[in-house]
Amino acid sequence: MAIVPEDLKTGSVFLNDDGELVIIDQTQLPNREEYLVLRTKEEIYDAIKRLAVRGAPAIGICAGYAMYVLAREKASLSPEQFMKEMREVGEYLNSSRPTAVNLSWAIKRQLGVIGADPSRCAEEQIDLLRGEAFAIHKEDIEMCTRISEYGLTLVKPGDGILTHCNAGPLATSRYGTSIGPVLLGKERGIDFKVFADETRPLLQGARLTSFELFRAGVDVTLICDNMASMVMKNGWVQACFVGCDRIAANGDFANKIGTSGVAILARHYGIPFYTLGPTSTIDMNCPTGNDIRIELRDPDEVRSMWYKEPMAPEGVKCYNPSFDVTDHELVTAIVTDRGIVYPPFDVNLAKLFA
Amino acid sequence: MAIVPEDLKTGSVFLNDDGELVIIDQTQLPNREEYLVLRTKEEIYDAIKRLAVRGAPAIGICAGYAMYVLAREKASLSPEQFMKEMREVGEYLNSSRPTAVNLSWAIKRQLGVIGADPSRCAEEQIDLLRGEAFAIHKEDIEMCTRISEYGLTLVKPGDGILTHCNAGPLATSRYGTSIGPVLLGKERGIDFKVFADETRPLLQGARLTSFELFRAGVDVTLICDNMASMVMKNGWVQACFVGCDRIAANGDFANKIGTSGVAILARHYGIPFYTLGPTSTIDMNCPTGNDIRIELRDPDEVRSMWYKEPMAPEGVKCYNPSFDVTDHELVTAIVTDRGIVYPPFDVNLAKLFA
Repeated sequence: MAIVPEDLKTGSVFLNDDGELVIIDQTQLPNREEYLVLRTKEEIYDAIKRLAVRGAPAIGICAGYAMYVLAREKASLSPEQFMKEMREVGEYLNSSRPTAVNLSWAIKRQLGVIGADPSRCAEEQIDLLRGEAFAIHKEDIEMCTRISEYGLTLVKPGDGILTHCNAGPLATSRYGTSIGPVLLGKERGIDFKVFADETRPLLQGARLTSFELFRAGVDVTLICDNMASMVMKNGWVQACFVGCDRIAANGDFANKIGTSGVAILARHYGIPFYTLGPTSTIDMNCPTGNDIRIELRDPDEVRSMWYKEPMAPEGVKCYNPSFDVTDHELVTAIVTDRGIVYPPFDVNLAKLFA
Repeated sequence: MAIVPEDLKTGSVFLNDDGELVIIDQTQLPNREEYLVLRTKEEIYDAIKRLAVRGAPAIGICAGYAMYVLAREKASLSPEQFMKEMREVGEYLNSSRPTAVNLSWAIKRQLGVIGADPSRCAEEQIDLLRGEAFAIHKEDIEMCTRISEYGLTLVKPGDGILTHCNAGPLATSRYGTSIGPVLLGKERGIDFKVFADETRPLLQGARLTSFELFRAGVDVTLICDNMASMVMKNGWVQACFVGCDRIAANGDFANKIGTSGVAILARHYGIPFYTLGPTSTIDMNCPTGNDIRIELRDPDEVRSMWYKEPMAPEGVKCYNPSFDVTDHELVTAIVTDRGIVYPPFDVNLAKLFA
């Protein structure tokens, strides 16, 4: 049984006191806060595949713990057999969501830990996997905390903050990224007014962001994506905080579909627009946003998902890009765990890695 | 019983052969094409309020017919009592949707017809109301046709046209206004590619616009509102055509929530942005958009309407304005039944009424 550090016992993915892997089933939110214990590799595979656990960092944390939890069943194996089976487990989990970079990253990291000395006995390897899983989780908390601290310097108490999609605690750990400054501020008695875009078609803003903020006691107002213009015109928004899935070397970045529209509105109304994310999101090998491939998803997410019945006639074409690219010219600053990066982004992002 | 002119027997609002007021229940589209007979003033009030009949001109047509249909019950009243009760009916119907200028316009027009000589007997007044209701309907068809003709001169065959909400045949008559050029073009063998914003929260774009265009054989692609930026960036849009609920004397105009956002995006991407509507939508007594009152609607339209279960936690605030105001600076031209009006709008709109 694992002794779980106190600060790692909460969030959307964690080990419980019995050392079991627990997740909040995000597909059940906001109507049911359901915790699932994932015991078998099939249960973990399934949870990742059906987005019960989602958000790049949360998936990474989950994979880290998964490798530890599944290793424990193999304590009696020989060192060779242990390594062989753990590689198979890694490969299997990896195939649950092949596009999730943090999934393969965490699995590779765990395999690296045990692969460094394959002659160690299984018991020893399992201890190392546990330590590394905690480290992955802890690093994410630290990363989110630093981003939140930096972000908090950009706003004043009482400010209105508009956000799009979800990069909160459920998707990451502790504070999250895009709404991290709000949650950190709340802990310190600093209140903001948050406007959460519902974020069609998957409604992460409605289902997850408004849930997380509401639960934390934050003054949050849910709006349809197309209301952002009016909310800004009303003078209610002093800053936009959004997450990012990939930042190119010139500061262009991909994030949930609709983000670029928010940035254009913010520019029109003279409102600062920030994206918040870990340094690991910056891809210096990707020169501009034009080099980011955009995933197209199932048209039925637009046409019929969530609804009692389809909301468009059968056969009507739907365009359903998962992300869009926001031009760096529209970005006031990029908030990372290593500090706030201002334009010119091509120069200043490179400095982060110098 | 009324003899209904052949060309007035179709559309989303009309009198049937029994002289009853019939509407398509637009809340049931696109899954069911359901026709409702509205017999009492409460049924009419309710149909307008819950948007079973919607679209400024359709509401005007409905109100015109309503005043006639409800007058028939009063055939035995004295001239004074008839006038008194009809004024009360008008006031009552008017309160069903206070923002809808065509509603009050049609009621006022009908009251003007009978008010011109209040000493006429009720039977005579009822005949006049019937004639006027037909005139309102017929004028709308002519109006839509003229707007469609003017609008058609602004685009080239094959152009991509982005539209928001619904101002098609269901909302008006025959061709509609905002998609009138597309439908008129289609009749003449001119094809366009239309991108229809789904238009949250009531999804008029998904349920109605895509339905109307798809049925007419137009190449239509449904998108979430937050995808408009990406569709424009892709170079797929050569013009935006939207309707209008009220145009102020300076060219500011109110239309479905989200319209102002589309206008800002269009400006950003250098795409012409047109609003199409009848001259009756222009309110020269309303100096600017600041003078237009915006109706706030039920938060549950955002939170739970249409869905199998609520998509945001119980108790979360939702802001749900029905309309927003688009600044005249963002408008390329206003397409009316009396011609295309270009800036300066304060000068050129006034000329329409000179």
